[in-house]
Amino acid sequence: MALIVQKYGGSSVATAEKMKHVARRAAATAQAGNRVVVVVSAPGDMTDDLITRAREVTDQAPAREMDMLLAVGEQVSIALLSMALQALGCAATSLAGWQVRVLTEPVHTKARILDVDRGRMLDELNRGRIPVVAGFQGVTASGEVTTLGRGGSDTTAVALAAALGADFCEIYTDVTGVFTADPRIVPDARKLHRLTYDEMLEMASSGAVVLQTRAAEYAKQYEVPLHVRSTFHEEEGTIIMGARATIPEESMEPTRVVNAVTHDLSVTKLTVVDLPDIPGVAHRLFNQLAEAHVNVDMIVQTASRCRHADISFTTSRSDAHIAIEATQRVARELGAARVDAEEGVAKVSVVGAGMVSNPGVASTMFGALAAEQINIQMISTSEIKISCIVSVDEAQRAVRALHRAYNLQDDA
Amino acid sequence: MALIVQKYGGSSVATAEKMKHVARRAAATAQAGNRVVVVVSAPGDMTDDLITRAREVTDQAPAREMDMLLAVGEQVSIALLSMALQALGCAATSLAGWQVRVLTEPVHTKARILDVDRGRMLDELNRGRIPVVAGFQGVTASGEVTTLGRGGSDTTAVALAAALGADFCEIYTDVTGVFTADPRIVPDARKLHRLTYDEMLEMASSGAVVLQTRAAEYAKQYEVPLHVRSTFHEEEGTIIMGARATIPEESMEPTRVVNAVTHDLSVTKLTVVDLPDIPGVAHRLFNQLAEAHVNVDMIVQTASRCRHADISFTTSRSDAHIAIEATQRVARELGAARVDAEEGVAKVSVVGAGMVSNPGVASTMFGALAAEQINIQMISTSEIKISCIVSVDEAQRAVRALHRAYNLQDDA
Repeated sequence: MALIVQKYGGSSVATAEKMKHVARRAAATAQAGNRVVVVVSAPGDMTDDLITRAREVTDQAPAREMDMLLAVGEQVSIALLSMALQALGCAATSLAGWQVRVLTEPVHTKARILDVDRGRMLDELNRGRIPVVAGFQGVTASGEVTTLGRGGSDTTAVALAAALGADFCEIYTDVTGVFTADPRIVPDARKLHRLTYDEMLEMASSGAVVLQTRAAEYAKQYEVPLHVRSTFHEEEGTIIMGARATIPEESMEPTRVVNAVTHDLSVTKLTVVDLPDIPGVAHRLFNQLAEAHVNVDMIVQTASRCRHADISFTTSRSDAHIAIEATQRVARELGAARVDAEEGVAKVSVVGAGMVSNPGVASTMFGALAAEQINIQMISTSEIKISCIVSVDEAQRAVRALHRAYNLQDDA
Repeated sequence: MALIVQKYGGSSVATAEKMKHVARRAAATAQAGNRVVVVVSAPGDMTDDLITRAREVTDQAPAREMDMLLAVGEQVSIALLSMALQALGCAATSLAGWQVRVLTEPVHTKARILDVDRGRMLDELNRGRIPVVAGFQGVTASGEVTTLGRGGSDTTAVALAAALGADFCEIYTDVTGVFTADPRIVPDARKLHRLTYDEMLEMASSGAVVLQTRAAEYAKQYEVPLHVRSTFHEEEGTIIMGARATIPEESMEPTRVVNAVTHDLSVTKLTVVDLPDIPGVAHRLFNQLAEAHVNVDMIVQTASRCRHADISFTTSRSDAHIAIEATQRVARELGAARVDAEEGVAKVSVVGAGMVSNPGVASTMFGALAAEQINIQMISTSEIKISCIVSVDEAQRAVRALHRAYNLQDDA
């Protein structure tokens, strides 16, 4: 008897029919003898509808009230899914974030989970009931409603799985797994059968929307085995587990230098021009950005000339407004010449655990982009990822060129 | 500086424009130097939309999950109204039922409020903020979401006003006050300027939908002055206060024998036929109904013949299903002949504090109905109310006839 956390995304519960399908799927897992906890997102377009309602009232909605508003989406889902489960004869109890006690830091619209109380969920499981938990939402120590940011339900699911010591966390979505590239851009992209946490983490943070970055982080930290799969097909999806060494040999993907190409089309690039080249400057800039809860991604500093240097960094479009404000403030304080902000850029990345021991990976990437006459604006590398910033209208062409350059269409 | 609780109903916040209007009204009250607490219902048709969603999933939604589902309506309202207030420069904090801690008994879909914690509201008021509290919803001691039944936001408002010792509880609605009869049925119905708690209570319980019965009870119990008025007009509405003796002479309505005619078109009448006439029979029947949380209204027992009697009683259409089931079970146990249920009946009532000392009120009522050839199926009286059950298609004619018979169209 396994303990399984199943997370169903918004497109999986968009209609009453889909809701019933999800209920049948969860009920079948329970009836096969497993203990099941379900995490669910807001139905279909509900979050967007709620945002529209807020915009009709004000163009500057306070973050606290946005969280109060958006949290209702998941509450609708948990109530309806519990009803659907009980209509199948399967005892179920809906639980809002504050009822489970998904404790978060006191930050609105993108809080981090600090702790999950497994007591209430275990109570329900021990009484033979399926806890149906609202994803995306939490509560602060002082009882304020918070949300975890877009895709936050993934993180909820992984955090619950970690708290419960679950055997598996299944992420149900509208694709059949994690692919070598987005199949809408690269038609011959292949499904990946196994990935390490690090690979998934680099893919998520570089634009693979199938899993929230923070969920991948959490899964790695607490060693929660993940299974990304389709709500509407039975086939096995992508299993994400520990380091390659811990995955049984026979189920291993053949080691490739590069496993996948990812992209992120909503990147904003900021450059602080002519920053005095004295110690502590970068610290002051990025400290201010951290305090404003801006997620900074790539950072590049040019070599100093005439005791001045440029610092460029990227952030997501949703953080751009706050990031630009904070950066302009610091730039003034530090006596920089100006801040350039460019909102229409994209990031393309190649990811693979084999990369670290293989020279020439970067060279292949730059060559493929050069052959397509695509200009590279920024470069950033990690042990298992290389990312380039390119113009947003060249991004899809870049992804296809890179997928070809590393032969990702072929089963190795 | 007064402390005022303002309650706005669903029709008052049905659109973004109306929401902004409500915000302006609450903000103006605060800016005039008052401390304001706002209670708000779900926007417009949202509750019905949520019920439709539930019906698409199951035809037997568990009560706990219905409460979880329906509670989102008010949560949407508090978030949007807080945003609208802040857009006007008026600090506001939305609070769900569990955040205020509107503690209720552990009953779903029509819980009673046991206690209200005024601490959080006072914190907000002391920080110069308007607490915007979700009506209709509460939380049990074990942290389950409950709802108070249709119109429950009135009760929330009165309970908060009682807990805070508010100077006034204003009930904003889409009519300008409490009328001598429903103006849609009686075009020359007059607005009542002053009512006692007892009159309001009898009117509410006999079908005046302008205020939930339980809210009137609560107001009477805690002596909370009420002001029922229109969201969209400035004119004074109907003030509801203690006994007639406590209302200043000059603001008194001239004492009338009958103040108003009310009606309730969704009454179900049940008759247990040939119940053995032994002690304890009525107790067993109504005890079972109480345990099933059925609200019983009128009760009539016929004189015994052949050691058997009939007991008739009425309940609301929403309780009819459970009431019939429970009554049939008890009837079988007690050896009654059968249970007759009639769902298409209506109750018409005349209400007035002056009635108790005026003989002939009932006679006028029965005479007016007889002149209209309207058959009376049941009669029930209290010190300040006489109610008759009639056929539902004769109810509107009955109301008009009674309004005329007591000359309620004339300013006395």
